[in-house]
Amino acid sequence: MKRNINEYISGYVDGEGCFSVSFSKRDKFTLGWETKPSFSVSQNEDRSETLFAMQKIFKSGFMRRDISDKTLKYEVRSLNDLITKVIPHFDTYPLLSSKQKDFKLFKTICLLMKKDKHKNKKGLQKIVTLACKMNPGGKRKYSREDILKTLR
Amino acid sequence: MKRNINEYISGYVDGEGCFSVSFSKRDKFTLGWETKPSFSVSQNEDRSETLFAMQKIFKSGFMRRDISDKTLKYEVRSLNDLITKVIPHFDTYPLLSSKQKDFKLFKTICLLMKKDKHKNKKGLQKIVTLACKMNPGGKRKYSREDILKTLR
Repeated sequence: MKRNINEYISGYVDGEGCFSVSFSKRDKFTLGWETKPSFSVSQNEDRSETLFAMQKIFKSGFMRRDISDKTLKYEVRSLNDLITKVIPHFDTYPLLSSKQKDFKLFKTICLLMKKDKHKNKKGLQKIVTLACKMNPGGKRKYSREDILKTLR
Repeated sequence: MKRNINEYISGYVDGEGCFSVSFSKRDKFTLGWETKPSFSVSQNEDRSETLFAMQKIFKSGFMRRDISDKTLKYEVRSLNDLITKVIPHFDTYPLLSSKQKDFKLFKTICLLMKKDKHKNKKGLQKIVTLACKMNPGGKRKYSREDILKTLR
């Protein structure tokens, strides 16, 4: 039987994947903050075959080894790869859990970034607000307020 | 587009699922040990939609809430359901990671149990040995030696 690896990947990502947008303080950026979207999936190294299958399918991203907990992380950070390769996959094979909400916010932010909206104050305020609605269970280095009050 | 939920489920389980066979000391059992196969998938309660989809597809199993870490666990323990519903799914849509090795050992054990092999000493010795090859990263309450030396 011919496998439908695309559906398989969406199922895998629904369990193990993470769409996130983080912000780093960077003096050289006009507004003082860098906006960093990321799609990542971690797995124990001894069963990381699916991560390599994803890298092949998405034709983008890189692997990073976390020695502390013996996991491998597959990550796509390039905005162009996210928009042309990762996002179209999940448009066609949407997540079935509420993680789909995070994907939708992620997509919105990536498309705003493609229009350089993160490079003006109003646009970045909007992006920060959207990003802070994602992954409500996770922890953020900077709160929405931390970032908004220090935008230059 | 019509979704292929079966592939999706296999991808999800490749990341989040667990095939295991545990053993409990039980005086009322002839050999002194009960053999308990289990297929389970855990997820944060706030995105447990996929677990309910699985319960519907497999037409078996139950949900259990773990209050301590706010997860929900979907589990199938009935040998008959495992053999007639769960195992055929993963025969048709195999896992792509090395977790497939655990599935194959699990299937072998379930089929041995169906032939009541766990009810005689030699059969149970074989099953214990196979079970202890599964999920090498996980912890067991009893080691292979603990069980084998106390078989009646």
